Amino acid sequence: MKITVPTLLLDKTKGLSNIQTMVDKAERSSVRLRPHFKTHQSAQVGEWFRDFNIHAITVSSLRMANYFASHGWTDILVAFPINLLEIDLINKLAGEIKLHLVAVNTEGVQMLQQKLQHPLNIWIKIDTGYGRTGIPAGDQNAIANVLDEVDQNEKLTFQGFLSHDGHTYKQTDADVIHNIQKSTINQLVQLKQHFIQRYPDLRLSIGDTPSCSIVDVIEGVDEIRPGNFVFYDLTQQYIGSCGFDQIAVCMACPVVATHPERNEIIVYGGSVHFSKDSLVKENGQVIFGLVVELSDNGWSAPIDGLELVSLSQEHGIVRASPEQFKKYKPGDMMGILPIHSCLTADIMKSYQTLEGEQLEHLSGMPQYLNVH
Amino acid sequence: MKITVPTLLLDKTKGLSNIQTMVDKAERSSVRLRPHFKTHQSAQVGEWFRDFNIHAITVSSLRMANYFASHGWTDILVAFPINLLEIDLINKLAGEIKLHLVAVNTEGVQMLQQKLQHPLNIWIKIDTGYGRTGIPAGDQNAIANVLDEVDQNEKLTFQGFLSHDGHTYKQTDADVIHNIQKSTINQLVQLKQHFIQRYPDLRLSIGDTPSCSIVDVIEGVDEIRPGNFVFYDLTQQYIGSCGFDQIAVCMACPVVATHPERNEIIVYGGSVHFSKDSLVKENGQVIFGLVVELSDNGWSAPIDGLELVSLSQEHGIVRASPEQFKKYKPGDMMGILPIHSCLTADIMKSYQTLEGEQLEHLSGMPQYLNVH
Repeated sequence: MKITVPTLLLDKTKGLSNIQTMVDKAERSSVRLRPHFKTHQSAQVGEWFRDFNIHAITVSSLRMANYFASHGWTDILVAFPINLLEIDLINKLAGEIKLHLVAVNTEGVQMLQQKLQHPLNIWIKIDTGYGRTGIPAGDQNAIANVLDEVDQNEKLTFQGFLSHDGHTYKQTDADVIHNIQKSTINQLVQLKQHFIQRYPDLRLSIGDTPSCSIVDVIEGVDEIRPGNFVFYDLTQQYIGSCGFDQIAVCMACPVVATHPERNEIIVYGGSVHFSKDSLVKENGQVIFGLVVELSDNGWSAPIDGLELVSLSQEHGIVRASPEQFKKYKPGDMMGILPIHSCLTADIMKSYQTLEGEQLEHLSGMPQYLNVH
Repeated sequence: MKITVPTLLLDKTKGLSNIQTMVDKAERSSVRLRPHFKTHQSAQVGEWFRDFNIHAITVSSLRMANYFASHGWTDILVAFPINLLEIDLINKLAGEIKLHLVAVNTEGVQMLQQKLQHPLNIWIKIDTGYGRTGIPAGDQNAIANVLDEVDQNEKLTFQGFLSHDGHTYKQTDADVIHNIQKSTINQLVQLKQHFIQRYPDLRLSIGDTPSCSIVDVIEGVDEIRPGNFVFYDLTQQYIGSCGFDQIAVCMACPVVATHPERNEIIVYGGSVHFSKDSLVKENGQVIFGLVVELSDNGWSAPIDGLELVSLSQEHGIVRASPEQFKKYKPGDMMGILPIHSCLTADIMKSYQTLEGEQLEHLSGMPQYLNVH
């Protein structure tokens, strides 16, 4: 199909290769890969994982769990604090699938005790240094309080401790990232030792894409939950999680104007297409994407001398070297690698594979968006 | 309807009052208000404008023009450079409505000459200082070149010059904003004087919300095209375009965790709900929203001691004073005013009015998103 508007291209070969790499790592680490589906949010991309014998997944909202449950996924972890207001959807899902929820406090568990109609599994979120949410790893009393609540209801089964090292996203040094993972695993293992007699089957789960990409063999935990790795993006390349050649999504943006007086190219592609996430380079410059050359088989590595430097609602401004500037004219199509593939995919609402197939994204499926 | 997930609330009374204020200003300035519909992108909010005798509108994409055309709008300006690749949709719309396109170069007009099937109107975009796109006001030769192309095709009718002073968004001083508008109008009036003999009906159109909000009587142009004013947001309040009490949209976000050790409240509401736009306060702190108290009748002014300071995909972190922190617990609903209502509405895909009515947004209407 001819592309005429900003379109999110997906290179299935790269996506499959990224999955294969992570599946191999999980196998050699003897951990289960429970991939996070919040990056792609696509029933069809989900099927790719099934072909690798993945049967348990992670999502970031109950509506996303509902979407994947309706596409045949039966073991789903919602890696987000229990939202007390969505008890009706929790009950629906708990009756249909093996549902896992994440407790970060006693309130969520107490509410489940009162209103839960079907069995479900509880993980306790441990804050091992990120500082977003979760119970601090050192606060064994708070953890025990939540466990006491869990044990009061026979419908609730405690599964183990999980953490998310979001602070690896701020790093670009592989050793630092490796050390963050080591520290997290150490903290979780200590907790396991403390609670193992009470819960002999207690499991540990970690989850960020940077450390899961960079560390070669992951030891000490039972499960990993990376998500972004299926597509990667410029942020992950900057962190060191992937090479440019592993980035599996690329925006195709029509060129609509060229400004020779300042070597700037205006593309149809703005903040409602890319999202407003940016990357601050070492020299302090803020970029919103890097330009590649599109071909029938995909796209090239980023081209020196072309950077997406500004976004307004529908416009993007690409700053060009004089040499590169000359190559573009209105009506051309420009390929631009995104800064953050999760947000770009969410806002674009669908994908077009290099073979021309249209793949869906949950955010383009309004029938799933207003579940209450 | 009970709210259980992040929901974009819309106070219709405030929206109508904002429209009334701008309609009154246009009347006393003797200019036509051609409101930009890219902020709300909603058929129902569009109807509010019709009740004020608005019949000509502005949009930022051809797909948005197609959406509003299908809802009975017959005079639509697409305030974006002509996208040569969408000639099929241009021809469809030009056959249905009074369509206005914006030329920023000769290429777009040349393509129309070859492929246009129905009459349409051309405005030339003039760069009066913003530096995004448009022909620099001083480049009368380039302007004349485009006009020569326009005149070669009897289906094309030149309407006039338009500009968009996006640089007012970087200002917070009313005098500076007023002076930007004065300078723009001066530049456009000079162009008008230069070309008026050739085009006796030539009109001038300007469009940013800050200057249209701040300047009391707008003189020298024929048309204004502000858009954001229907909802306003924290950015516009910071600029000085509106008061907090004029902001007509507010996110309702469930509280899912509280962290007394650092006085932080975690809400269900992240970058896939708010967008990643932020506001840098005078003290250098970055915020993503301000907290208000929700009630059946709407919401309060922002509460001192509560700020949305961080967003990840689904999580928001609200930093609280010790006094405010104590007032919230998991299961509560928190109201948060958005930084940039256009992007928040685009990403939320629908509105809920205070009366409980669901209003649509183009981005939640997939049937309009894949028009080629």
